Amino acid sequence: MYIKPTFIIDEKKCRNNIRKMADKAKKSGLIFRPHFKTHQSEIVSHWFAQEGIDKITVSSVDMAEFFINLGWKNITIAFPFNILELHRINSLPETITINLLVESVEVTKYIANKSKRNFNIFIKINAGYNRTGLEPNNNSEIESIIDTCNSSSKICFKGFLSHFGNTYKADNPEEVINIYNESVSKIKKLKQLYPKALISIGDTPSCSIINDFNYIDEIRPGNFVFYDIMQLNIGSCKFENIAVAVACPVVSIHKSRNEIVIYGGAVHLSKEYIIINDSPVYGYISLFQNNGWKQLLPDTYLKSLSQEHGIIKTNSTIISKFKVGDLIYVIPVHSCLTANLLKEQVII
Amino acid sequence: MYIKPTFIIDEKKCRNNIRKMADKAKKSGLIFRPHFKTHQSEIVSHWFAQEGIDKITVSSVDMAEFFINLGWKNITIAFPFNILELHRINSLPETITINLLVESVEVTKYIANKSKRNFNIFIKINAGYNRTGLEPNNNSEIESIIDTCNSSSKICFKGFLSHFGNTYKADNPEEVINIYNESVSKIKKLKQLYPKALISIGDTPSCSIINDFNYIDEIRPGNFVFYDIMQLNIGSCKFENIAVAVACPVVSIHKSRNEIVIYGGAVHLSKEYIIINDSPVYGYISLFQNNGWKQLLPDTYLKSLSQEHGIIKTNSTIISKFKVGDLIYVIPVHSCLTANLLKEQVII
Repeated sequence: MYIKPTFIIDEKKCRNNIRKMADKAKKSGLIFRPHFKTHQSEIVSHWFAQEGIDKITVSSVDMAEFFINLGWKNITIAFPFNILELHRINSLPETITINLLVESVEVTKYIANKSKRNFNIFIKINAGYNRTGLEPNNNSEIESIIDTCNSSSKICFKGFLSHFGNTYKADNPEEVINIYNESVSKIKKLKQLYPKALISIGDTPSCSIINDFNYIDEIRPGNFVFYDIMQLNIGSCKFENIAVAVACPVVSIHKSRNEIVIYGGAVHLSKEYIIINDSPVYGYISLFQNNGWKQLLPDTYLKSLSQEHGIIKTNSTIISKFKVGDLIYVIPVHSCLTANLLKEQVII
Repeated sequence: MYIKPTFIIDEKKCRNNIRKMADKAKKSGLIFRPHFKTHQSEIVSHWFAQEGIDKITVSSVDMAEFFINLGWKNITIAFPFNILELHRINSLPETITINLLVESVEVTKYIANKSKRNFNIFIKINAGYNRTGLEPNNNSEIESIIDTCNSSSKICFKGFLSHFGNTYKADNPEEVINIYNESVSKIKKLKQLYPKALISIGDTPSCSIINDFNYIDEIRPGNFVFYDIMQLNIGSCKFENIAVAVACPVVSIHKSRNEIVIYGGAVHLSKEYIIINDSPVYGYISLFQNNGWKQLLPDTYLKSLSQEHGIIKTNSTIISKFKVGDLIYVIPVHSCLTANLLKEQVII
């Protein structure tokens, strides 16, 4: 079986997640442009294609190149455009649609002046997450960017893009709904001012929980394809929707402190954690079965990670069921970062 | 120059760190067995070889194979041995010395029964870090492991190995010295009981700060080769000893909130942080110069990381010096995890 930390994808759960979100987008009349940074996977991208998806989101030029080489032809690079990489995308054929993200006139002018092919432009809008983006009421900068696009033969203004990343800090679906509504209330003015502009949003909590996408034209969730403990904790998914786990060997058992040492550390799972009962949790644990993870072990969690070690805290009843050489499943806190670390993916 | 997040090694600083630690080990009569998990680098391993180092530490069978392929012949796999991988090392030629780590009779017996070549055995001892290892006063288990070794023709007991990992939580050199002294006071009994057994310790804070290694036979530090912000904060090194930085492009500047957005996120730097003035710090910042990082920018730090974005908090004076398309250096919090993420290394 598996002899070292191994990233496992449950195909049925993953395809269900894809189908459910694609259906929701369709029923809501939304463009569905899933974010492929979560899986970065050829096989998972095929599952999307089989659901009829042909527009995708990535977060780097590297990722755009990877998926273009796999045949994808309509790509948004959802990252404030890094002007140092313009030459890398300048030579792409015009048959590939590339949407770039800007948040200043300066960068827009740079692209307009130096581009050797056509690009579409989305303006990044800050709807309250405060990571990147222009304030929605920054009319002068927004107008200048649109003017720059309109006076260029190379770049074409398409719309506004926002990421309500503050929903990842929510503790329950009600909080997600509140953050979503507050964020939409900020950006809907743009739809009123520029009715032809597309409004694109992206976070998995909103896209999973919200059903009424008024004012929105496009959704770009990524994490929903796998989900994880963070999303379970927010209430974006149920345990049975989580489509990934990391199979890890048990290397040592310390009954005196109710701790199990696994081969599986920060270089496999990432150091992302959530706080539960004032303690950091780096993952939950499920028994290993060939056909997947069926339920979480109660009173059991990954309490710390070193580079290669993981320490599971549990109780005396559960610890007695394990022996060295067993495999366990770690359900990751943040599947995007775990998938990025474990490039080899096993499909069950 | 660099167009995306790039891991830069300052060769002179790195070689100085190697030479200094090698000299210290030599003067103290210690075996120097550096941990290569920090750099995982062919070129850095050559710099060690040029200082006369021929014994190394790694933390996985994968890493052992990597360095064996580069010609290294004396390797400690400093991780509670994962019995599922015994077949991978069973076929290594006897000219390669392999030291394995055990913390139970069960695993020791497994190796004794299934090994197809000779292995040396170190017993992992918990000196207070409480991650792995037997308690130093667990005489019955220790005796049983040694008996198992003595009655096997395949495995040979060599000594005790400990990692004083709690020194990484220290805030100053005095705390490191206290933790070191407390840890040594626990394991020195083993030296008295088994005078022929080697005592091996490993943490970079102790190895950097301590000068009197009484009772110790071998040191295995890893991080010292690069150092980082965590070690600077502990007092294990000075800023001028930090031999790595990540060159990152500036992609956006938000003067209204004194924040700079860089291309450089969790997939480049890792989510390791330290707490300074009650806030998480994911890295410090230095101006970009071709010949390296000369000093830290005051009042400036990496305040948050997404998958690909980093957000630098600074002040209004400093922010005015930057423009989109500039490069900055991020000095990482934990160089081991950053080096693991950015496999391409540029040497200056």
